[in-house]
Amino acid sequence: MYRTNTCGELNIQSAGKEVTLCGWVQKSRNLGGMTFVDLRDRYGITQLVFNMEVNSELCGQARKLGREFVIQAKGKVRERSNKNTKIPTGEIEIDVNELNIISRSELPPFTIEDETDGGDELRMKYRYLDLRRNCIKNNMILRHKVAREVRQYMDSIGFIEVETPVLIKSTPEGARDFVVPSRMQPGTFYALPQSPQTLKQLLMVAGYDRYYQIVKCFRDEDLRADRQPEFTQIDCEMSFVERNDVLDTFEGLAKYLFRKIKGIEINEPFLRMSYQEAIERYGSDKPDLRFDMRINVLTEAVKGHGFSVFDSAEYIGGICVPGCSEYSRKQLDELTEFVKRPQVGAKGLLYLKYSPDGSIKSSVDKFYTADDLKKWTALSGMKPGDLLLILAGDRSKTLTALSELRLEMGNRLNLRSKERFVPLWVIDFPLFEWDEEISRFYAMHHPFTSPKPEDIELMKKDPGKVRANAYDLVINGTEIGGGSIRNHDASVQKLMFKVLGFTEKEAEEQFGFLLNAFKYGAPPHGGIAFGFDRWVAMFGGQDSIRDFIAFPKNNSGRDVMLDTPSEISEKQLEELKIVIKREKEG
Amino acid sequence: MYRTNTCGELNIQSAGKEVTLCGWVQKSRNLGGMTFVDLRDRYGITQLVFNMEVNSELCGQARKLGREFVIQAKGKVRERSNKNTKIPTGEIEIDVNELNIISRSELPPFTIEDETDGGDELRMKYRYLDLRRNCIKNNMILRHKVAREVRQYMDSIGFIEVETPVLIKSTPEGARDFVVPSRMQPGTFYALPQSPQTLKQLLMVAGYDRYYQIVKCFRDEDLRADRQPEFTQIDCEMSFVERNDVLDTFEGLAKYLFRKIKGIEINEPFLRMSYQEAIERYGSDKPDLRFDMRINVLTEAVKGHGFSVFDSAEYIGGICVPGCSEYSRKQLDELTEFVKRPQVGAKGLLYLKYSPDGSIKSSVDKFYTADDLKKWTALSGMKPGDLLLILAGDRSKTLTALSELRLEMGNRLNLRSKERFVPLWVIDFPLFEWDEEISRFYAMHHPFTSPKPEDIELMKKDPGKVRANAYDLVINGTEIGGGSIRNHDASVQKLMFKVLGFTEKEAEEQFGFLLNAFKYGAPPHGGIAFGFDRWVAMFGGQDSIRDFIAFPKNNSGRDVMLDTPSEISEKQLEELKIVIKREKEG
Repeated sequence: MYRTNTCGELNIQSAGKEVTLCGWVQKSRNLGGMTFVDLRDRYGITQLVFNMEVNSELCGQARKLGREFVIQAKGKVRERSNKNTKIPTGEIEIDVNELNIISRSELPPFTIEDETDGGDELRMKYRYLDLRRNCIKNNMILRHKVAREVRQYMDSIGFIEVETPVLIKSTPEGARDFVVPSRMQPGTFYALPQSPQTLKQLLMVAGYDRYYQIVKCFRDEDLRADRQPEFTQIDCEMSFVERNDVLDTFEGLAKYLFRKIKGIEINEPFLRMSYQEAIERYGSDKPDLRFDMRINVLTEAVKGHGFSVFDSAEYIGGICVPGCSEYSRKQLDELTEFVKRPQVGAKGLLYLKYSPDGSIKSSVDKFYTADDLKKWTALSGMKPGDLLLILAGDRSKTLTALSELRLEMGNRLNLRSKERFVPLWVIDFPLFEWDEEISRFYAMHHPFTSPKPEDIELMKKDPGKVRANAYDLVINGTEIGGGSIRNHDASVQKLMFKVLGFTEKEAEEQFGFLLNAFKYGAPPHGGIAFGFDRWVAMFGGQDSIRDFIAFPKNNSGRDVMLDTPSEISEKQLEELKIVIKREKEG
Repeated sequence: MYRTNTCGELNIQSAGKEVTLCGWVQKSRNLGGMTFVDLRDRYGITQLVFNMEVNSELCGQARKLGREFVIQAKGKVRERSNKNTKIPTGEIEIDVNELNIISRSELPPFTIEDETDGGDELRMKYRYLDLRRNCIKNNMILRHKVAREVRQYMDSIGFIEVETPVLIKSTPEGARDFVVPSRMQPGTFYALPQSPQTLKQLLMVAGYDRYYQIVKCFRDEDLRADRQPEFTQIDCEMSFVERNDVLDTFEGLAKYLFRKIKGIEINEPFLRMSYQEAIERYGSDKPDLRFDMRINVLTEAVKGHGFSVFDSAEYIGGICVPGCSEYSRKQLDELTEFVKRPQVGAKGLLYLKYSPDGSIKSSVDKFYTADDLKKWTALSGMKPGDLLLILAGDRSKTLTALSELRLEMGNRLNLRSKERFVPLWVIDFPLFEWDEEISRFYAMHHPFTSPKPEDIELMKKDPGKVRANAYDLVINGTEIGGGSIRNHDASVQKLMFKVLGFTEKEAEEQFGFLLNAFKYGAPPHGGIAFGFDRWVAMFGGQDSIRDFIAFPKNNSGRDVMLDTPSEISEKQLEELKIVIKREKEG
């Protein structure tokens, strides 16, 4: 037996006990005739003590231990004279009488501390060392705990976890598939699922009633920051439900997780807001409602006074920033720079300062009377001391830019605490969006989303106006999950494919299995999928999902530790009957 | 709201309640003026009643319902006059006053009954209908329950579930990898994991101490019956352990599952048997110990009497079949046919009948005296009334054939009840096996298995004799799991690669990340992986795993429902920069 105890469990009650511990050398200190070693494992840190006077040979050995050596130490637990109240084992230490080195360690390429000196690339290359850091280890334990609680809750309300296959069929809709060449049937391919969407719908057709799965999904996208080619979804589906049944069920899950993971009780129902309202008020379909600062339409009020920027704009809107009327020239210049960044995309920023003394100053003074400006303050709900920030231009782009500006002001005013959570259901999304480039509609969620029943008739006449029976769960401005009531009627599903530009033959080839299934008694059904990595990162108080995944890929989709994707052997290519098209052979 | 209750929960206490149910029409019967419809959902069956006299229109509607129609029925719960005690809802029925057809169904291609008329191919094509059958649905619920209990137990003893990546690196050792072409780095590939072996070892290097995962694994093998290209593993690893720590831990898991899933208490420790003993006694490294009937070596006793079959054989062995001395000519001929099947591979079968009256009769009478034959009965532990079945030939092949014959006799004598479970740890496997074809050693388990410490020295001198610190859990003759203590010392791991024929450069290219990790303080570690599909099938009392997987592939690796693997578009191939080598182009 290697050990009697872990490094996280001995305390004052254990004093006097003979124990054997194993772990990693976190650090060691020589103080006079004593050597102290902090021994670390997953469970904690225990202090080992060696005394030069009592056993100089052993103490000499201890002094030769390097950081991250794996050792076994035997000795007696005793009360510490100099207690450390910050850790559970801080009242005791081990008076070591035997020391064995199990594995030596070279000097690690970065320090194994919360604040490490390792850069991203280095940390990823030596991920097994990075994972030793307390902060990353805690993320992994948090992830485990969230998964466990998700299962606990879903089980408790009658959902069963069903594994769906990873080797499925490539379909053209949605993002790009990763594909897997078949050796047994050369020239054909499996695809990795972007989500188990159609399979979970088939489980509903099969009568499984309540399904969930914590499942890996795959998208071969050009990776933006903080996207992973493989990611994990909490995938759920229910039968014989309408929208509110689904929202209520998963609001229950969310509240349960907040309670179990964060100790936060949310008693009131989550806010629900239509897509249209979210865009009009916050410029975004995932508004951060930790603070208000909504967008006010100024278009009518400001046009027609000879100021060409406004007169030529389709839309003018502003946000009222509380208590910032005294912003300096420099601060306003910074904000102007901010909105002009390509990611935000505004042409410029206009402002109106409503001083505490009641006076009004604006960057467009010369075009407007004091009364005009006074009207703006009323329209924007300003109080003396507030600052109005105004953007103008194309409606959709200006709303997006206002949304970005709003979030920036939220950050500057510390209104976005990571310890507060404001969940929101965004509902009634458009069913279709028009893609200018390929001149056709595509599905805003996915092609299995149903229209709102009252909008079905519009599908033939004016698809752009059809609202989907779809919903997103947004928390603090992040989309945590999304879903919809699905089509269970083959005729509506076929109409959907038609609007999306599928011929009947194409629909049949790609989704025949689903259309066919609907012929044999399909129940009404709907569901949701949550971004598990994202949700865990939010619970962990971080924006990036990277450090909540044990072995993530970098922004080029590479695993730099495994050094892959990589070349495979000629024999493998030969067996798969595929040839790589080198650029030169082009 | 679609329904107030499910079809599995109403009982006599609900009598008088107004309810709304939804589900599938299982069957309907017209009896005089009454129509009875069995309404089915995941939870059960509830009887709906329509009365022609009370409401002829409604009853008329009910008579038009086809099998598998999805309907909604409203009505009052009432006590049944003709009770069905076989189902929980059998005491009540619903006196329906409103009926809505939600979805119609065409006539299903096979009956949705436990004993269906659908063949395998048809069932797989319409798997969503097959999954409606009670027996298959129960398999899926059993699978869910086993997974839940596995997690429950592993969590309770401090294991954390960590997700490892699905897109990893292709390595030449082991079975064939499925590969995934990278679009972002054309000409390179990811591989799908055959198991998360190296990644879980890195988690041990990272100090995670106790890891598990219920995880999909992939092998591109030529599929034998009942193998799937994707399958699920309960994958586990622990640090600072020796073999017995691992065995004790997972014996705990197995006992817990037997208790929770099957209601079977196993109090005594599982048997442990060396590989060598298993082969010698049972001709197999996964002996079925539900019955004894062990193999007795007869080589010395029977040679040298002029019977050339024996005299020329390397090995002669027999099994004593209790109570079968009166087997007829026909029965013995059947057994001879059995052992001559190519899967068994013996050349012929010899026997000795030890009659209840003490007389002995054998197929080789003329070469041996009565005393000789008497000696055989003693050697084989025969009692009057027993039958000795003897095979001769090459040692290894004969032992394998004897094992098959032993299982056949177990079946014939009903000694292999599916309700009895006899678990066994097989230990001390050879580390290497010699592959005649490619003239090199390969790893019997995998290349990360450690030798038994006392055999390390043998690795350089006589690798074929080295025993691995490896173990399999065998239940009723099926390998449920296997694992080993791993190498955590880079020098032993490198020696292992050397014996396996890797050059230092190849070892570095393929497994550099692991060898590198061992430089930074690797703990001793070991683990195990269980075949989850297999274990669930065993709990379900079946030999085939197919019906314990929601959407399995057929024996050619096809999903006949999704109709995949399938062709992908030219655009996809172009983006991946791969070309398919058609046969004609050679």
